[in-house]
Amino acid sequence: MRKLAYLGPEGTFSEEALRILAPDAERLPCSNVAAALDAARRGEAEGAVVPLENSLEGGITSTLDELAWGQPLIIVAELLLPVKFSLLARPGTELGQIKRVITHQAAHTQCRAFLARELPDVHVIAAASTAAAAQEVSLPGSPYDAAIGAAIAGEHYGLIEVASDIGDRSDTVTRFVQVTRPGPLPKPTGADRTSLVAYLAEDHSGALLDMLSQFATRGINLTRIESRPTGDGIGQYFFHFDCEGHVFESRVGEALSGLHRVCADVRFLGSYARADGLSPQIRRGTADHEFAEAAEWLDRIRGDGA
Amino acid sequence: MRKLAYLGPEGTFSEEALRILAPDAERLPCSNVAAALDAARRGEAEGAVVPLENSLEGGITSTLDELAWGQPLIIVAELLLPVKFSLLARPGTELGQIKRVITHQAAHTQCRAFLARELPDVHVIAAASTAAAAQEVSLPGSPYDAAIGAAIAGEHYGLIEVASDIGDRSDTVTRFVQVTRPGPLPKPTGADRTSLVAYLAEDHSGALLDMLSQFATRGINLTRIESRPTGDGIGQYFFHFDCEGHVFESRVGEALSGLHRVCADVRFLGSYARADGLSPQIRRGTADHEFAEAAEWLDRIRGDGA
Amino acid sequence: MRKLAYLGPEGTFSEEALRILAPDAERLPCSNVAAALDAARRGEAEGAVVPLENSLEGGITSTLDELAWGQPLIIVAELLLPVKFSLLARPGTELGQIKRVITHQAAHTQCRAFLARELPDVHVIAAASTAAAAQEVSLPGSPYDAAIGAAIAGEHYGLIEVASDIGDRSDTVTRFVQVTRPGPLPKPTGADRTSLVAYLAEDHSGALLDMLSQFATRGINLTRIESRPTGDGIGQYFFHFDCEGHVFESRVGEALSGLHRVCADVRFLGSYARADGLSPQIRRGTADHEFAEAAEWLDRIRGDGA
Amino acid sequence: MRKLAYLGPEGTFSEEALRILAPDAERLPCSNVAAALDAARRGEAEGAVVPLENSLEGGITSTLDELAWGQPLIIVAELLLPVKFSLLARPGTELGQIKRVITHQAAHTQCRAFLARELPDVHVIAAASTAAAAQEVSLPGSPYDAAIGAAIAGEHYGLIEVASDIGDRSDTVTRFVQVTRPGPLPKPTGADRTSLVAYLAEDHSGALLDMLSQFATRGINLTRIESRPTGDGIGQYFFHFDCEGHVFESRVGEALSGLHRVCADVRFLGSYARADGLSPQIRRGTADHEFAEAAEWLDRIRGDGA
Repeated sequence: MRKLAYLGPEGTFSEEALRILAPDAERLPCSNVAAALDAARRGEAEGAVVPLENSLEGGITSTLDELAWGQPLIIVAELLLPVKFSLLARPGTELGQIKRVITHQAAHTQCRAFLARELPDVHVIAAASTAAAAQEVSLPGSPYDAAIGAAIAGEHYGLIEVASDIGDRSDTVTRFVQVTRPGPLPKPTGADRTSLVAYLAEDHSGALLDMLSQFATRGINLTRIESRPTGDGIGQYFFHFDCEGHVFESRVGEALSGLHRVCADVRFLGSYARADGLSPQIRRGTADHEFAEAAEWLDRIRGDGA
Repeated sequence: MRKLAYLGPEGTFSEEALRILAPDAERLPCSNVAAALDAARRGEAEGAVVPLENSLEGGITSTLDELAWGQPLIIVAELLLPVKFSLLARPGTELGQIKRVITHQAAHTQCRAFLARELPDVHVIAAASTAAAAQEVSLPGSPYDAAIGAAIAGEHYGLIEVASDIGDRSDTVTRFVQVTRPGPLPKPTGADRTSLVAYLAEDHSGALLDMLSQFATRGINLTRIESRPTGDGIGQYFFHFDCEGHVFESRVGEALSGLHRVCADVRFLGSYARADGLSPQIRRGTADHEFAEAAEWLDRIRGDGA
Repeated sequence: MRKLAYLGPEGTFSEEALRILAPDAERLPCSNVAAALDAARRGEAEGAVVPLENSLEGGITSTLDELAWGQPLIIVAELLLPVKFSLLARPGTELGQIKRVITHQAAHTQCRAFLARELPDVHVIAAASTAAAAQEVSLPGSPYDAAIGAAIAGEHYGLIEVASDIGDRSDTVTRFVQVTRPGPLPKPTGADRTSLVAYLAEDHSGALLDMLSQFATRGINLTRIESRPTGDGIGQYFFHFDCEGHVFESRVGEALSGLHRVCADVRFLGSYARADGLSPQIRRGTADHEFAEAAEWLDRIRGDGA
Repeated sequence: MRKLAYLGPEGTFSEEALRILAPDAERLPCSNVAAALDAARRGEAEGAVVPLENSLEGGITSTLDELAWGQPLIIVAELLLPVKFSLLARPGTELGQIKRVITHQAAHTQCRAFLARELPDVHVIAAASTAAAAQEVSLPGSPYDAAIGAAIAGEHYGLIEVASDIGDRSDTVTRFVQVTRPGPLPKPTGADRTSLVAYLAEDHSGALLDMLSQFATRGINLTRIESRPTGDGIGQYFFHFDCEGHVFESRVGEALSGLHRVCADVRFLGSYARADGLSPQIRRGTADHEFAEAAEWLDRIRGDGA
């Protein structure tokens, strides 16, 4: 039976995502994203399930940066998980008694309106994950009165829901990805996404436009672009891209090759089925058979000009 | 005497930035970025000094999102502040005794290598700011043994430096901006930057390339691009841009107008002197006098065709 | 009563075009395109009607070059004239007797298949115009047996049609333009065309793409692009452009200004109603009201940033 | 010994070009460009030498159109030939006696200033070539007093030079190309040119920009672009392109493939050494080894994602 690492402890949204993506897998909880990815890298787990971005908070920078550096991992699946927050406390606690709340920073941000309205004087302390916060509250003698986290975490740690669905927006979604060490890629499904990281060539102004042109010339839409600092100073960035299509498709392959040529470096992060199942619109001249015909034509004219 | 809000309490890097940007200003410490910006919005302060991005951590998302939504504020100055972290503890504390450290999440991330090497078993708790962490450690009966923060915070709260310059990289820099309510813009200096936020028109594919073309066609380099989720679901983003030049310059004005036309909305975040003093290279055909000549020519041909 | 010059003598397609474009005008026949345009330039005529391009032969280079250099003239109207050729001879002539044919070179080219099929051994001599050829044939003692020209020319010079509609293609069309000295432009009709000539900046590679981008960025389709040599050596060209829209429209005005900035020189050749009456599709963000809104917004943010 | 067709009769500039391009070849004079190309197509000659463009007159439309349609031919060499015109007449003729001049239309155009100044009342008749004009003048009983043509034509037909170098510009150059039936291409020299013809996909607006982007994305400069009517009506064009580089180079091959995909049709017209010997500047990311590295990388990531 295969084992997958995830951001633990039990009761996190990551665990929920893992249960959906791989119901039969053994689960290895890790204390943070880096640890989960390292477990996959070192072979302690076959892979890992980690959050990549949130519809309210944006990119999960620790995941973005961990995937960009270090030993390569590739994404083989993605999941869009609705995120619902509950206010979790020890049995018997009432809303009016809550003075100190612990939760993950992202959850804090997403529940700001509820906190301002219902608990204007509350003190919020940051935890490593929402499940860790729930766990902390469940400990005897905890200095915290409540945690904000998934209902599942409350169940797990014997807490009650003092309030549920307390997020500022009820439609918040987190995108999780399942990563593994490099190996055979998922087969194209016709509704795929490709992820990659690109590092600008330093001596090359207008480089971002050049990168985007590689996609545009082949009729490929980008579904996400995110800049991250290289660490070498303000103004130095690298880029995470998600684009439509699978690297096995000609237009995607040629665009990635093009990117490889104009960039200082490109890291491939995988081609995998889109969670939303949307098929791209293939623009005239960019279908696989058109690439094949063009290649045959090129061979022919290189042969004898005709 | 004017008053500026900042991310407090005393001893934060924001305070340090404020002291450099406006040495004579009265300082109003606020508990978070949103509170500092709101103080400026409501007129409790004339403006605010907040971090915008960090060379290691990337964009400060709370600042980016706060500037994008709510009542407009504009940037009037920027500062690049080297960030040095110290391990701060109550007098008498030795490295070997430190079991529980409190600090801001960003500082934690930036000191990971030091912590892994010197304090492999330490427990790190997140605080609202590095100064708040130092303040916490200084309190009698604090459950924390040390804080990670600026040396200045240590001085302020009576702590000693158990270790200094403990960041993984010694060249980390944070970019701070001074914002005010809309009003007369800073004069162009020849080495300026313009910041703005652009919201894609929903029904418009290839919209990002269209936006970038507005800059490229006028020969304007982008110095930063950052995508942020609109909150309306995965795949829905808006963009922060920094570009070279001042909105009073013709090429910048026309690019911004162009952006206004092709986007659902554009928010202007100010034109101000670059902290690095770099002057842009003005490409042929994009200087102010060339715009003026072209406008005169257009008037002439519209008049009588000649 | 106004007078218009045209490529004479009487009986040319140019005369036919002039009669349709300006039925009441006095007609001044000239021996070639340059002479007709010069008559307009010198004020001997109020304007001139000249051919600009032919659907089979392409641009009429003498017109293109004459409009690009010398004293400026602007186009105020255009006409698409179907071109039908007849084989014209003195009364009594039969097809089998025709050994020497005189006509304009363009007409010769367009009737090649007929000549090869029906008169394989004929000798074809070039004349300045098809009407001049008909006139020549009509003279007593002419060495030529027949002319190729418009039926109207035959009538005019007392010739018979030995064969009619002898062009290789029955759908050939010539585009004529009416030009005048610079003055008030025709009013926009909603279905207009703008013509211009652009000279590349010499020190600027990728200049053609830059020029085209000026149109593309403002959503303007080009309806014709024609390169012409500057005369300064192989590889040195200037360009004739026709684009959709009227210079009074904002998107066209801004594109022309942009072109003026990136080119060594631009000559405006007029905005006028399209003969085909086709209205352009106005792309999102390029309508006049959107330009006006963007300009107001720019004024506002330049005023106080809001 | 090989035989090459050319635009005759003896004494044309084409003959001069042929003598330079292939000094040892047998020469087959033809009455026009189409006939010369057909001789090559039918195998009556191994190839043909024809004019492609003139620095004053522009593209030679008969050559452009003949190469675009019919059985394919490819260019294997090019030559830039300075063009000098002489006024040629029968021995004993003086300038003042000349009333009727015969020449090719292009020569007429290029000597306009001389004719206006020295022979203001002269009557100019068009001939099929400048050499044919010289031949005509040399015939006993010719109605023409002089021809305009190459000095070599005068020698050939026993005429004297009444005036020499009478062109309006002394630096006029004609570009000749040597074409053959499709076969092995000339080897790349490092300073090559590639010629092709592209037909726009009818249902595809912005198609010209798309075509140019195929070159721009691969860092390839265009050295000539010429639109020609398809014959299907005003506004319907196809395009002749010359670009830097050889089809054996990766960036050129990929650009041509890209063009093949986005166009209704592309006809390859050959890759051959540039007459001017100029080497292109290879832009970062477009050298053959960079294409090879990118292809290897793509194979690798398609294999196992790493």
